[in-house]
Amino acid sequence: MLAIQILDYIGVFVFAVSGVSAAASKKLDLFGGVIIAFVTALGGGTVRDVLIDAPIAWMENTEYVYIALGGSLFAFTFRDTVKKIRKSLFLFDSIGIGLFTIIGLQKAIGFGFSYDIAIILGVITATFGGVIRDILCNDIPLIFRKEIYATACIAGAVIYSIGDYFQLQTELNILISCLTVTGIRTWAVYKKVSMPVINDRL
Amino acid sequence: MLAIQILDYIGVFVFAVSGVSAAASKKLDLFGGVIIAFVTALGGGTVRDVLIDAPIAWMENTEYVYIALGGSLFAFTFRDTVKKIRKSLFLFDSIGIGLFTIIGLQKAIGFGFSYDIAIILGVITATFGGVIRDILCNDIPLIFRKEIYATACIAGAVIYSIGDYFQLQTELNILISCLTVTGIRTWAVYKKVSMPVINDRL
Amino acid sequence: MLAIQILDYIGVFVFAVSGVSAAASKKLDLFGGVIIAFVTALGGGTVRDVLIDAPIAWMENTEYVYIALGGSLFAFTFRDTVKKIRKSLFLFDSIGIGLFTIIGLQKAIGFGFSYDIAIILGVITATFGGVIRDILCNDIPLIFRKEIYATACIAGAVIYSIGDYFQLQTELNILISCLTVTGIRTWAVYKKVSMPVINDRL
Repeated sequence: MLAIQILDYIGVFVFAVSGVSAAASKKLDLFGGVIIAFVTALGGGTVRDVLIDAPIAWMENTEYVYIALGGSLFAFTFRDTVKKIRKSLFLFDSIGIGLFTIIGLQKAIGFGFSYDIAIILGVITATFGGVIRDILCNDIPLIFRKEIYATACIAGAVIYSIGDYFQLQTELNILISCLTVTGIRTWAVYKKVSMPVINDRL
Repeated sequence: MLAIQILDYIGVFVFAVSGVSAAASKKLDLFGGVIIAFVTALGGGTVRDVLIDAPIAWMENTEYVYIALGGSLFAFTFRDTVKKIRKSLFLFDSIGIGLFTIIGLQKAIGFGFSYDIAIILGVITATFGGVIRDILCNDIPLIFRKEIYATACIAGAVIYSIGDYFQLQTELNILISCLTVTGIRTWAVYKKVSMPVINDRL
Repeated sequence: MLAIQILDYIGVFVFAVSGVSAAASKKLDLFGGVIIAFVTALGGGTVRDVLIDAPIAWMENTEYVYIALGGSLFAFTFRDTVKKIRKSLFLFDSIGIGLFTIIGLQKAIGFGFSYDIAIILGVITATFGGVIRDILCNDIPLIFRKEIYATACIAGAVIYSIGDYFQLQTELNILISCLTVTGIRTWAVYKKVSMPVINDRL
């Protein structure tokens, strides 16, 4: 499972970079940038751990703090590079979302929660970092407005749950469900597909 | 206590409907609508359970998730109907607020907290769903600005606490204190009474 | 340690007063003012206690609730006085920040967390009350934008941690590290020093 661990670290790093970008667009200072980077990268897992009453992941495994800090410093130092490699970052961001969903889902299942609650907790893990980032930046959260994002997480979480129920081999299950999340999200952004807006004539 | 259980379910349902209305006014997408519905309906109890370190109610009793989801789908499907029955919804909303206050208060008392802290937790249960809804929608929370709402909750919570202290029969106590909340709120909206704004000349 | 206890109480009182000022500038009503006062004064410690899974401080030691309430009522009643003594309040605010940082840090160390995590929790204790206040008031948190504030907390927390590691006498360590926070913050405001903003040319 070393590959998963490494991808998880990369996901945290990339989320931190995207947090700094959001902070920069709001003309925040360096401290604000680090905080936004932290909540983007670690906020979703923190909310999940508070809800399931687990020790907070980054407080137990402090390497996450340093990876998020590293992502912030990287984004501060190489602002131009970050803009150039935006597409590669998007790919890692999409992989991160998939992994965060499944890691949150697995943790909730491990804590004895039923699949429906575990799916919600998986989606919270992947999305609430961005939600808190947008609240701190005084925006309506992006995922409520524009993108197939949470929907991709839900799809991947449901597929993992079905695989888990039928005792599919775990590594294979993670691979399939993560690829589902990453694939749907990448496809949606590429094709500019978005969720319908609520209105009087659905 | 079956009547209380049913009214509690109706309260969650109606809160979810009102969440979708808030989301629609901000032109959020369907996913955003469901999330706002969930936090409006379940957010207050979630904050309470995190503070008193109890298992989160909707994670233990998953029917709440489906009732909130049902409220969302109802609001999506019958947007015109929702507008027409707005007055009936307001009544159930006011009943919901009363019940949520007393349920939160009872739970806090059951966890051994003193009346003053339990009153705060009752008010949090009834109001913080709406507070988080407004934060996510990028508004200053409505209850800080316009309505006798929290004040009604505090009044009902104090009355319940007095009744509880003097060992009033529980069902009767719930009835009296919930009617207090619902009555004050309905009266205030009907009479357009509101709290004074803070200013230099109070 | 009586002096520390009294300064802690004064810190909570002054934070509550500053919360009412923020609420008044947004034309909130009295209830909104009390809530903003409470979250400003008690929000940072609440987030810390949720993260380390400790009983929430103000729910165990209810005098904090009454001190925050007292600060609110003082601010409502003596709005003109509050404006006149703004400079004295700023001093107590800066002392409060220093104390809150070190109290949070000590508590985290006492719960067995490593220094790096404890420093983060100390800073959260001192700053997140103001962050939640600004979110509720629909502003981008002030500390992300304008002031040497969190930086002062981090400096004091690091100094306390070094002193603690070398088993410096606790009262002396508190004194030095709190004075560091208060000193840096006062100096920065006096000299109008602020953190650099993130931009393309750091």
